Amino acid sequence: MKIDVPAILAGDRRMLARAITMIESTRPEDETEADALLQQVLPHTGRSVRIAVSGSPGAGKSTFIETFGTKLIQGGRKVAVLAVDPTSSITGGSILGDKTRMSALAAHSSAFVRPSPSGGSLGGVNRRTREVIWLVEAAGFDRIILETVGVGQSEIDAAGMTDFYLLVQLPNAGDELQGIKKGILEIADCIFVNKSDLDRASALRSRSELESALHYQRPRTSGWHIEVIAGSALSGEGLDDLLAVISKFCEHQGYSNQDEKPPTGSLLHLRRCAQLTDWMHDRIKDGLLRSFYANPNVQSMLPELENQISNGSLLVTDAFKKLFDAFLQGARS
Amino acid sequence: MKIDVPAILAGDRRMLARAITMIESTRPEDETEADALLQQVLPHTGRSVRIAVSGSPGAGKSTFIETFGTKLIQGGRKVAVLAVDPTSSITGGSILGDKTRMSALAAHSSAFVRPSPSGGSLGGVNRRTREVIWLVEAAGFDRIILETVGVGQSEIDAAGMTDFYLLVQLPNAGDELQGIKKGILEIADCIFVNKSDLDRASALRSRSELESALHYQRPRTSGWHIEVIAGSALSGEGLDDLLAVISKFCEHQGYSNQDEKPPTGSLLHLRRCAQLTDWMHDRIKDGLLRSFYANPNVQSMLPELENQISNGSLLVTDAFKKLFDAFLQGARS
Repeated sequence: MKIDVPAILAGDRRMLARAITMIESTRPEDETEADALLQQVLPHTGRSVRIAVSGSPGAGKSTFIETFGTKLIQGGRKVAVLAVDPTSSITGGSILGDKTRMSALAAHSSAFVRPSPSGGSLGGVNRRTREVIWLVEAAGFDRIILETVGVGQSEIDAAGMTDFYLLVQLPNAGDELQGIKKGILEIADCIFVNKSDLDRASALRSRSELESALHYQRPRTSGWHIEVIAGSALSGEGLDDLLAVISKFCEHQGYSNQDEKPPTGSLLHLRRCAQLTDWMHDRIKDGLLRSFYANPNVQSMLPELENQISNGSLLVTDAFKKLFDAFLQGARS
Repeated sequence: MKIDVPAILAGDRRMLARAITMIESTRPEDETEADALLQQVLPHTGRSVRIAVSGSPGAGKSTFIETFGTKLIQGGRKVAVLAVDPTSSITGGSILGDKTRMSALAAHSSAFVRPSPSGGSLGGVNRRTREVIWLVEAAGFDRIILETVGVGQSEIDAAGMTDFYLLVQLPNAGDELQGIKKGILEIADCIFVNKSDLDRASALRSRSELESALHYQRPRTSGWHIEVIAGSALSGEGLDDLLAVISKFCEHQGYSNQDEKPPTGSLLHLRRCAQLTDWMHDRIKDGLLRSFYANPNVQSMLPELENQISNGSLLVTDAFKKLFDAFLQGARS
């Protein structure tokens, strides 16, 4: 499968889709080609605002992204949505089975909607999502929406590859839910209390409750005040406010001209550099573990050691020492 | 700090507490001694039922554990509780600050309550929790309760070191919450719908809703039907049912005589062996990464490579190749 880089840079959507498929491939023979591709597109990345849109199932994320994405397009932007296609961690089947989500947005010529299989990881961020962001940027998309669902690691991963973190939630989600979301509140830059069209009073009440709670919260973006907006993805209420908040955030981060990359030394540039370094360490860990377990010496010793660990006759520290020596020996030859 | 192993085996609580502190220590000089200690206690572990008690903040876990633990003691058991002392992932401060939780149970001579700092990881399972379980077993505790909170990885970690997974939840937790908990339902062996004393009708309704939902759920324990109990930690309702379910579960797992270890070849023995193997691989990963980053060659190359990655002049695959070669070279000498 040949990837035509100039076609991607010119915005050819079929070639873009094909490139993403190659990047997401786990076949070793695709990996070298994927690296070469990334090397070529890298200079053309970074001119965009990367927005994580997070929220529980039922908060109305799909409708929100559809309306919000359309609004961005009306403002002259090109929008790429990396959407969740959640799979159950045990059955491997799709939970939502919703191929038809965001259909209006997906049909628009200034939008590109790509459902990403979440694979083993709950929540929709996979090991290649960061590279996929680069690809869509290289193809000219300048507003990237990364949808994520659920809780825990996937939220932290999503925060680690975006500029702005938006939490969409229902009014009256209740104390119980707030407790669970404690961790998410710590990484949000803005909260959109959705479905104000259904019950405006409770949306406003939720907003002020959240504002009080956030009063005691240290924002993840130092010097930034976490904004809470009550609105409706259905009626479009609150979306202008949200656009204004995002603009203000970009200003705060020293990123006013979004047709260029964030200026060297700006807060956003520093954030992206730190994210890249974290990502590099993730990839290093990956590579190290793969070399270790692919080592023939390690492979031949493992079954017996697992046995001895299981029946309690060997300590794991000693097992590690043996494996590590064997690994070095194997890597040497 | 000298650890007296015979004293631990005789049930000396102060020595046990001291041993746990040493095991949880991150000082390299404690590590060798910790390994020696584990080697000595290992033959005395495994004679217990290990129960994970999970649930969101507010579900009433503390009260539940207090009542349930007391009931186990009345039945002649010795109960160790490894409790959550949650810390915020950003501020590092305690979220609950609840040193006084489970005070009645903690004061009982047949109970041992140990709050474990969750460290960086949300949810209360830390890298040494598995070893701490062994220590309390060696000290004669035969019902181990591992409290966990929140969501995501910590739940999976807790499931990976226990025999029986109990989810405590509120009635009427709502669809929203159900969505979030989808992942947790997949690992539960039993669900206790708490606070039936407040509203019996809604506790019963929640129970039947959960039962319908679970009808389509593949249980994590093959051949086991996930039981749902409506009860109250406050009034004690439902706790006899829970004890019966745990007995039935142990029978199902081929573990009837709990004064001994699970018989070789029993389902529970196989589960514990698989858990040990997973844990061995976790420790191997830890050790490998630590050797890598402690390698002087790697340390001296890293800053420049991070720089080049940040400004886009180097691909991470190439950075890894350089680091890996340097690592092997350094490990050789």
